[in-house]
Amino acid sequence: MSASHRFDPGFTQNVIDTMGPKMNPRHRVVLSSLIRHLHDFSREVELTIDEWMLGQDFVNAVGQIYTPQRNEAHRISDIIGLESLVDEIAHKIISETDTDPTSSSILGPFWSPHAPFRPLGGNIIQNPNPDGKICKMHGVISDLLTGKPIPGAVFDIWQASANGKYDFQDPENQEPNNLRGKFKANEKGEYYFYCYHPTAYSLPTDGPSWQLLQAMDRHPMRPAHLHIMVTHPEYSGCTTQLYPKDDPWLKTDTVFAVKPDLVVDFKPLQGDDKATLELEYNVILAPKGYKGKQI
Amino acid sequence: MSASHRFDPGFTQNVIDTMGPKMNPRHRVVLSSLIRHLHDFSREVELTIDEWMLGQDFVNAVGQIYTPQRNEAHRISDIIGLESLVDEIAHKIISETDTDPTSSSILGPFWSPHAPFRPLGGNIIQNPNPDGKICKMHGVISDLLTGKPIPGAVFDIWQASANGKYDFQDPENQEPNNLRGKFKANEKGEYYFYCYHPTAYSLPTDGPSWQLLQAMDRHPMRPAHLHIMVTHPEYSGCTTQLYPKDDPWLKTDTVFAVKPDLVVDFKPLQGDDKATLELEYNVILAPKGYKGKQI
Repeated sequence: MSASHRFDPGFTQNVIDTMGPKMNPRHRVVLSSLIRHLHDFSREVELTIDEWMLGQDFVNAVGQIYTPQRNEAHRISDIIGLESLVDEIAHKIISETDTDPTSSSILGPFWSPHAPFRPLGGNIIQNPNPDGKICKMHGVISDLLTGKPIPGAVFDIWQASANGKYDFQDPENQEPNNLRGKFKANEKGEYYFYCYHPTAYSLPTDGPSWQLLQAMDRHPMRPAHLHIMVTHPEYSGCTTQLYPKDDPWLKTDTVFAVKPDLVVDFKPLQGDDKATLELEYNVILAPKGYKGKQI
Repeated sequence: MSASHRFDPGFTQNVIDTMGPKMNPRHRVVLSSLIRHLHDFSREVELTIDEWMLGQDFVNAVGQIYTPQRNEAHRISDIIGLESLVDEIAHKIISETDTDPTSSSILGPFWSPHAPFRPLGGNIIQNPNPDGKICKMHGVISDLLTGKPIPGAVFDIWQASANGKYDFQDPENQEPNNLRGKFKANEKGEYYFYCYHPTAYSLPTDGPSWQLLQAMDRHPMRPAHLHIMVTHPEYSGCTTQLYPKDDPWLKTDTVFAVKPDLVVDFKPLQGDDKATLELEYNVILAPKGYKGKQI
């Protein structure tokens, strides 16, 4: 800790007090806290003028590289854990029983609102990759409180191909909606379809987020993962990611999106000529409005 | 305060712990503190996903508008007090005697390294503005410890014209280096020249910084000010700003750069056919390496 008492003790409050009476009350809460924390940070580390200017140049560089296909501000908030934290704040429910609802995880930048519905038992692999290992994925979607299945729940899945790229990023090899699909659970709450065993991939190794990772002596890898978003009008939806248990990047995921109940076991599959692997994953949703234990 | 104990207590430390062993130690201190404060801020206000995305869009918008003539990242750090705070951290010296060195204040974006030397008694007004009130400014530059004058100290001054614009911003009316000049103190440490009484002006009322000011229900005005930078090879230089004591924006300066010893009294001047006002301002510099009272 530094001798921050050298500095004007009223400075931060003075900045906050210039906010006017007509300000939206929530904005006042958020911006007051943000300003207080940025000032406390600056005093705590005795931020130098050169460091402050570097930060300013960095913010400008982040915005300059922005395109609808490349959002480095999003990526940087991911690599400092902010998206995962905001996701936890928004979705954390601690159940009043022994069972918790399926943990949420970050949406990431690759979800598409245009993924097509496919029939149960269908295949999201539209443009095969020779390195892809095909997996039959299946499970039951059930109610946190009653344990009963949730017929009609929608299971939306998206994933990168075996080259580590999503359709958006790889138009030469993948048509739009390759490795994307929505499936409607049957009367027993069951879903099942074919996808790939996921592949680990690197964040881009150019641009401001890579500069920041290098400055922190960190690797750019995300563990292999499947993205899922499970919804039903009467339930709190669950957007999350699933990770193979033997992935080497689980402990140091670049975006801090791994949680214990999201680590899964892909097993060899026999007797299905469409797939060599199997993944069973059951999803538990809380009824809409269920708050869980208030602690 | 929110029920932040709902959230994973190890999350922030885990993010920090992914930093590798080869990281520069100072970077580790700065980035660890920044990440900790951003996480604490997010938990404290229970930042929503929409608010986080708004912040991300805001960062992108700030960078997108950047040009060498327009740095909104700089301006935003000014309006949340960050440049003034970093300036205080860098320059605050508490004297061991009754006298303090002249307070520093922020450089701002309009200093130029190309300002010409002018002779003592010269005039920085190269392109007169009909609304400008001419002022004879003078004073002595002296040593904090001995009280003795500092011959050869360089007094660099820059200011906006009576329309509130600097030469860079106003090429139709102002040539480069209008209202800029450097003066070398004489044997008695004295400097003197002619300039304008300064004029209050508004920050630009478009772009991200203006959006932020509006969200905070704040005005965009800077009090009228003169910028000065006083240097000598054997002394810690002083970059600061001087404000007329009757300016209405002193208490709510948009960039929080006013300090008590920088508020000055412009007086009527008689017997000088070049000016109607007078400003006496003495500058006190600390010898290089002088640290002051360590508290």
